[in-house]
Amino acid sequence: MKPAEIGEDALIRQLLQQVPHAPVAEGGPGDDCAVVPLSGGVLQLLKTDALVEGIHFDGAAAPERIGWKAIARVMSDFAAMGGKPDRFLVTIGIPADECVARLEGIYRGIGNCLRTFGGGLAGGETTSLPAGNGLFISVAATGTVVRSRLVWRSGGKPGDVIFVTGTLGGSLRGKHLDFTPRLAEAAWLVENFKPSAMMDLSDGLGSDLPRLAAMSSCGYEIEDRNIPVSDGSDLDGAWCDGEDFELLFTISPGSAAALQAAWGENFPQLALSAIGNFTEPLAGISAHRDGWDHFR
Amino acid sequence: MKPAEIGEDALIRQLLQQVPHAPVAEGGPGDDCAVVPLSGGVLQLLKTDALVEGIHFDGAAAPERIGWKAIARVMSDFAAMGGKPDRFLVTIGIPADECVARLEGIYRGIGNCLRTFGGGLAGGETTSLPAGNGLFISVAATGTVVRSRLVWRSGGKPGDVIFVTGTLGGSLRGKHLDFTPRLAEAAWLVENFKPSAMMDLSDGLGSDLPRLAAMSSCGYEIEDRNIPVSDGSDLDGAWCDGEDFELLFTISPGSAAALQAAWGENFPQLALSAIGNFTEPLAGISAHRDGWDHFR
Repeated sequence: MKPAEIGEDALIRQLLQQVPHAPVAEGGPGDDCAVVPLSGGVLQLLKTDALVEGIHFDGAAAPERIGWKAIARVMSDFAAMGGKPDRFLVTIGIPADECVARLEGIYRGIGNCLRTFGGGLAGGETTSLPAGNGLFISVAATGTVVRSRLVWRSGGKPGDVIFVTGTLGGSLRGKHLDFTPRLAEAAWLVENFKPSAMMDLSDGLGSDLPRLAAMSSCGYEIEDRNIPVSDGSDLDGAWCDGEDFELLFTISPGSAAALQAAWGENFPQLALSAIGNFTEPLAGISAHRDGWDHFR
Repeated sequence: MKPAEIGEDALIRQLLQQVPHAPVAEGGPGDDCAVVPLSGGVLQLLKTDALVEGIHFDGAAAPERIGWKAIARVMSDFAAMGGKPDRFLVTIGIPADECVARLEGIYRGIGNCLRTFGGGLAGGETTSLPAGNGLFISVAATGTVVRSRLVWRSGGKPGDVIFVTGTLGGSLRGKHLDFTPRLAEAAWLVENFKPSAMMDLSDGLGSDLPRLAAMSSCGYEIEDRNIPVSDGSDLDGAWCDGEDFELLFTISPGSAAALQAAWGENFPQLALSAIGNFTEPLAGISAHRDGWDHFR
């Protein structure tokens, strides 16, 4: 049996059955980050994410953008739970014929992203790779979130309005390498219009929205015409391309209009679109295209 | 310039200059783990470590042993600072033609190691790899250590006796895949004969001892005849092979004899060898062979 035959989500479920899970009362596998109690009303977020040459970037990409992406993807997960970044561990697998100059460029990009959004390097590792292997970067990080501001994927209710920030689709033309993790927007949201459920869009609306709905035990209805499509992309791209790294969240219907108005004042440069509603579970699904599956 | 031309330690120094470091009063790059203050006299340890097919294991290795090694290496670093394991994040890069059965075996090995020594999975990631790339596993973990039991690499003094546990050399014949991380021994040491400096031997005595001495601002003298050589290996192997995952530590000369006696009673199955002394810095070095450098 090959991973492609069972798909990413089923493979992960099968592998997770083999191991003991951390005794976390809160969170664990299934949300954007693992959540660990600290003292004094603050929780720790744990997250790991990897970039592989030939999968998440190609060899021609500017090294600084590769490093930026490696860190920004993790920042985006912290944002998705209402948190902020803290300490980073960076592991880099280095091909036999790699140049030190490219590695320095990657670490400059890592540094640029940390300086822009906060957080610092606390450790890491370098390892050589056999000839023919592409470079990989594996980032693990801790973040923090105030308990009252923490947002799970699981809190959505039937009737809640589904929002996305920014525009979707076509990220391969460049945005996937230098996107802005929505830390500022998420921090404002959890303080002013706390979402009932939230995640970041990494695998595309078509993969990620069903996950958010399932974690909230809801179905969903989407109006395709309300989906914000990136310039040069199309509706298929918005559903399926992935790596948008925008926020996908739900909010009670009574707060939706006030959110829209306040958002425009606070983030005039960034679109916020109401694209549909959560419904009762197993209700008819008006639109559903597949997003990205790593093994299909 | 290629990494092989400057070597692992210099490459890491060069890359670390590009990034902001976490504002940790204690630790950071350079010790076995990063150390983060928590509340109430307990510190958090952060560690990341990666295994690559063709570098750290070959494709014929039993999957359970690959998974065991991935986790045990990190456990060994927690032991080296007097701590214990807590939460693990496991990232696995999966080649295009991988079999689900091997992946399940690897996760069984991960589970076996966690169940044996404590700690649980808190999250992780799977990613596909381009055709031709070997599998990799990148593990990040948190641990904990009581402040009064924490041991740094930097506390050694001239005159301190240098000890190693177990035997060294020849780990490629099998030990590198199913070694026992010295958590129990380290916990006993920090409670009863707290070392002045400690680390685990991952790259070989020839690479690691100079690092421990440098962090303690000491030189060292080693008696080759006191080095415990594994059956079937030789002195070169004991200095250079690496992946012994034994403890290397120093203790004040006045406590050395009492330690030796108590050790024999508590750990009769595991050798403890006094192999030399720390000296004043820049003193003559009686024996020094190179250990493992990932890029040479």
